[in-house]
Amino acid sequence: MIITLNEHTTEQQKTEIISYLKSYGVNISVIEGTMLSVIGLVGDTFSIDIKSIQAFHFVKDVQRIAEPYKKVNRMFHPLDSIVAVDGIKIGGDNPIAVMAGPCSVENEMLLDETAFEVKRAGATLLRGGAYKPRTSPYSFQGLGIEGLKLLKAMKEKYQLPIVSEIMDGNLLPEFEKYVDLIQVGARNMQNYQLLKALGKAQKPILLKRGFSNTIEEWLMSAEYIVTSGNSNVILCERGIRTFETATRNTLDLSVIPIVKRKTHLPIVIDPSHATGDWRLVEAMSLAAIAAGTDGLIIEVHNHPEKALSDGAQSLTYQNFAKLMEKGRQIAQVVGRKF
Amino acid sequence: MIITLNEHTTEQQKTEIISYLKSYGVNISVIEGTMLSVIGLVGDTFSIDIKSIQAFHFVKDVQRIAEPYKKVNRMFHPLDSIVAVDGIKIGGDNPIAVMAGPCSVENEMLLDETAFEVKRAGATLLRGGAYKPRTSPYSFQGLGIEGLKLLKAMKEKYQLPIVSEIMDGNLLPEFEKYVDLIQVGARNMQNYQLLKALGKAQKPILLKRGFSNTIEEWLMSAEYIVTSGNSNVILCERGIRTFETATRNTLDLSVIPIVKRKTHLPIVIDPSHATGDWRLVEAMSLAAIAAGTDGLIIEVHNHPEKALSDGAQSLTYQNFAKLMEKGRQIAQVVGRKF
Amino acid sequence: MIITLNEHTTEQQKTEIISYLKSYGVNISVIEGTMLSVIGLVGDTFSIDIKSIQAFHFVKDVQRIAEPYKKVNRMFHPLDSIVAVDGIKIGGDNPIAVMAGPCSVENEMLLDETAFEVKRAGATLLRGGAYKPRTSPYSFQGLGIEGLKLLKAMKEKYQLPIVSEIMDGNLLPEFEKYVDLIQVGARNMQNYQLLKALGKAQKPILLKRGFSNTIEEWLMSAEYIVTSGNSNVILCERGIRTFETATRNTLDLSVIPIVKRKTHLPIVIDPSHATGDWRLVEAMSLAAIAAGTDGLIIEVHNHPEKALSDGAQSLTYQNFAKLMEKGRQIAQVVGRKF
Amino acid sequence: MIITLNEHTTEQQKTEIISYLKSYGVNISVIEGTMLSVIGLVGDTFSIDIKSIQAFHFVKDVQRIAEPYKKVNRMFHPLDSIVAVDGIKIGGDNPIAVMAGPCSVENEMLLDETAFEVKRAGATLLRGGAYKPRTSPYSFQGLGIEGLKLLKAMKEKYQLPIVSEIMDGNLLPEFEKYVDLIQVGARNMQNYQLLKALGKAQKPILLKRGFSNTIEEWLMSAEYIVTSGNSNVILCERGIRTFETATRNTLDLSVIPIVKRKTHLPIVIDPSHATGDWRLVEAMSLAAIAAGTDGLIIEVHNHPEKALSDGAQSLTYQNFAKLMEKGRQIAQVVGRKF
Repeated sequence: MIITLNEHTTEQQKTEIISYLKSYGVNISVIEGTMLSVIGLVGDTFSIDIKSIQAFHFVKDVQRIAEPYKKVNRMFHPLDSIVAVDGIKIGGDNPIAVMAGPCSVENEMLLDETAFEVKRAGATLLRGGAYKPRTSPYSFQGLGIEGLKLLKAMKEKYQLPIVSEIMDGNLLPEFEKYVDLIQVGARNMQNYQLLKALGKAQKPILLKRGFSNTIEEWLMSAEYIVTSGNSNVILCERGIRTFETATRNTLDLSVIPIVKRKTHLPIVIDPSHATGDWRLVEAMSLAAIAAGTDGLIIEVHNHPEKALSDGAQSLTYQNFAKLMEKGRQIAQVVGRKF
Repeated sequence: MIITLNEHTTEQQKTEIISYLKSYGVNISVIEGTMLSVIGLVGDTFSIDIKSIQAFHFVKDVQRIAEPYKKVNRMFHPLDSIVAVDGIKIGGDNPIAVMAGPCSVENEMLLDETAFEVKRAGATLLRGGAYKPRTSPYSFQGLGIEGLKLLKAMKEKYQLPIVSEIMDGNLLPEFEKYVDLIQVGARNMQNYQLLKALGKAQKPILLKRGFSNTIEEWLMSAEYIVTSGNSNVILCERGIRTFETATRNTLDLSVIPIVKRKTHLPIVIDPSHATGDWRLVEAMSLAAIAAGTDGLIIEVHNHPEKALSDGAQSLTYQNFAKLMEKGRQIAQVVGRKF
Repeated sequence: MIITLNEHTTEQQKTEIISYLKSYGVNISVIEGTMLSVIGLVGDTFSIDIKSIQAFHFVKDVQRIAEPYKKVNRMFHPLDSIVAVDGIKIGGDNPIAVMAGPCSVENEMLLDETAFEVKRAGATLLRGGAYKPRTSPYSFQGLGIEGLKLLKAMKEKYQLPIVSEIMDGNLLPEFEKYVDLIQVGARNMQNYQLLKALGKAQKPILLKRGFSNTIEEWLMSAEYIVTSGNSNVILCERGIRTFETATRNTLDLSVIPIVKRKTHLPIVIDPSHATGDWRLVEAMSLAAIAAGTDGLIIEVHNHPEKALSDGAQSLTYQNFAKLMEKGRQIAQVVGRKF
Repeated sequence: MIITLNEHTTEQQKTEIISYLKSYGVNISVIEGTMLSVIGLVGDTFSIDIKSIQAFHFVKDVQRIAEPYKKVNRMFHPLDSIVAVDGIKIGGDNPIAVMAGPCSVENEMLLDETAFEVKRAGATLLRGGAYKPRTSPYSFQGLGIEGLKLLKAMKEKYQLPIVSEIMDGNLLPEFEKYVDLIQVGARNMQNYQLLKALGKAQKPILLKRGFSNTIEEWLMSAEYIVTSGNSNVILCERGIRTFETATRNTLDLSVIPIVKRKTHLPIVIDPSHATGDWRLVEAMSLAAIAAGTDGLIIEVHNHPEKALSDGAQSLTYQNFAKLMEKGRQIAQVVGRKF
């Protein structure tokens, strides 16, 4: 950690802050510049709150040198983490995981048909929402527990492990019973109560990036889950909020190589929610594979205009199968199974 | 609602979508352009999901004409809502409410001193965090229930109603017991489970704007609370995330006149969290008053460098008193008591 | 164009605005809602200024239905435009164009070596800056005209057409003499004087997207060049400014399928400037090819730490050759030559 | 400047970079951490290009400690700069300057009436565009030189110095003849050719912040003008681009206290362009005064719906006079004349 002091900082003030910093048990070096002085801290600075240092009125700036996360930091765990979802291994050199299915579970017949079709095209997990975070209280909010049961039934029928979003820590027992990979949605990425609860879960977690969260904040949220006891975390990029209005969000594919350098956790891409537009999903999926993603999560609905949510971003069975075919070839070029 | 169809939409497709739209019971007008056709919907379009219409592959674009919120919409409720917080009236022509106190409750002695000082300077409510949302799991997470009890004791001693943040719907009974104005933090603005729970609360709610949420999304979150049964909602702007790094967030003061036009709910400004820098708090507080705010929420800590959270943005007692003095004069110019 | 009127608009006001709108020679339809009225305009609305309509105080909102650009709009020109750069055809089904070379031209020996190496690896154009837009007046500003002459010499030696950035319309004669594809940098995307000047140029233009410009604004800038007389415009995405600080900018690859739908102009991706980090360039280049780009522009410098500008984002010869090899295979999967 | 090296950096690599850094003539300190090493540079680091250091592949991160600007840095020039515009002094304790007038100059009669009215209400400068940067090539582009002449005539009639935007350095002689304060628009903030040309001008410059530029970039652009020879620069905030769509841009009023700390140059606020909505202009103007602005620039047009540009954001004479009246009272509270 590097602390810069203002140009008129007195010797007494320097002594005051240095004595304060020593209480953290870190090593301290001082570099005197022409006008500004700099204090360097070495050691375990994870627990130091930057804002308490900035509160000294003669401090100009404080910058971290080391990342503020530890358990999910690749520096301390150089090998790729492999997360097993009911036997499907994700991360490392394992095949690219494809999670496909409807945005919301709507009824058994449709879910069954979709599960059959995505399995046939090569998907390895079934996604489907039973509890839906909707901007409007007047929108369809999901089938709830009935939805989870339908998903579980499909799992048994088609051997497709289930991915579904949890919004309420109180429902964790139900999710542990019916779901194989518990998703934290973008809006809950910094719902720390939920993250702590999921740290106690016996199932792996798919942690979506908040649509306005930095990569560092995202990894700090993963750190919450891991420090609470659950090290099976998969990251999922689903687009960030920018000024551009031509897409719902801007899919940030550069996170793939960045995240792989900063952390050992696997990374999955969600082109459906990022773009909000089925016409962009194939191109963005292929791009994600070329960039090295460990997985994809894709919405599929054969009658998008009748979907109870997010129809505009869903692929038909046929378009999904086409995407899978091309994806397989791109994966081969970058040395991955699919 | 206005639906634009692509240039090669067939008559059959038009018939198909019109028949679909009629199922919503709205009136339909069609305008034929040179290349594009436009369908206008009139009536109660609140429950129509834009994305299901966009899912028709020949639809080019869908735009709402009316706002998607109803209960919090000023169009339907032209008069200002007044929210009473344990007798303190906020909104309309009532005096500008000043909520002041430490970021986190740390100990009784300090809280008592702070409550005494902010009361003396003119604050009308006492703020203090007992449960703190922290980016890092290694940071101080708040005193919890003990913090709430300390706040309640101060309320009784100084007649200052209490504002504190809730992060977990399960704690609502405790918050209803100890707190007068229950705050929803920026990170939970779209935690719909929590919003629905607060819709059942007997206490008013301070709903902070998510740091990356549009005004429309913010009002939709207020709509969640109101439609769930609690119409005592106060909005709070605390800065939005932008590319600028000189401040923590960018305080968007234009929300004051905008929100007053769009909704009847009161609006409060939080310059401390927005800027993250105590040196900017006075200027931004005065600006907020000049722009017509109904209230301010300000962090005060007399030894900011010893604060367990957010010291960098806290005012000392002296600086807070100075701000109150100038604020009073600005308020007078814009015709408000303070 | 759709104009929404406020709920209390009088009949007289409606008559006033309708008579105003009729002066533009467009057809007008009125849809009366419960509270709001909507006016639809059909015809040539390109020349109507939205802000002059918003200036009527009873107007609630104005939205365009048709895009505000005409010449670059695919709706009016369904076939792909092919832009020839000194014989190299870009766009449509033509091979993916690779423009490679140093950020800045530094000296002849290095440029010669780089040109030789990128040519050998398969690049089809040579890029190099002679006039550099630098944030700091204290940074290297480029070799100027000498740089252009060196580029021209390399072109003759290696048969590599030249791409270089123009910052000043007064230098157009020199650029037309020495350069084959004249680049408009991101900071000048809305320098309309320069765009108009380039509309008179005899050479094709590479128009970079401003780092905070929407796709629509970008196409409007292309429209400036085309309406001024030069229809040989290639678009270039180089990342947009977002809140994320892990990369210099966020590369928005979804522009590839979007731009191909909205316009007939070719699109090229610049992963070097977007990410600012050579370690991300390969992944993002492969992703761009998978997403359907018509070209790439990549910085190559064999001693990045000695580069006079932007060393951090430059590939070595070896890394560039490796990227070309993989790129060729991805291109094959998506049906493009390389 | 602080350079952090990766965990596996060898001694040889350290020697290599240290010897490279010594070539800049700065003093070097090394702090060895547990895993990372840090190199601190002290001295004149202005001319060091961060990106060339990042190009060393074992460098993890580079951070500046001192600001990269010198001439406009308050650290080196503690006293406020006062900029005189044809005798009107701006900055320091001088009265708040009000620049008012139409977006575009349209015709003599209207300009005369507007000049008369804004003067009567208390404006001290007349603003008006003769060359207009318009997103669409189909929009009104301004009267050009005729517009400048009309402005000059009004200046003589009403003793109102003239502010007008330059878009082309070739027109500098005309601007020096007709205009008193030459404005650089937001889109040209990083048009370095233009900035260098204006560094030779005999007239003061109003430098608008680019709508997506950081405060640091803005000050670097001011540094371009000052290092080129013209130290009479006034900064102007006009809103930044964010995800919010309820306003054209988000007015960032926190720049006022920030800019005053970082630089000695005066700062002016443009609420008209920032919000794009006349209904927000009064509130934002009063807020700017309360926050300590040195000036305002406001669009006034008595028939906004007939304005050839930007009518939606223009105040009528009556609304402008009302704003001036309240502004005077707010100014008094914060100790400024108006």
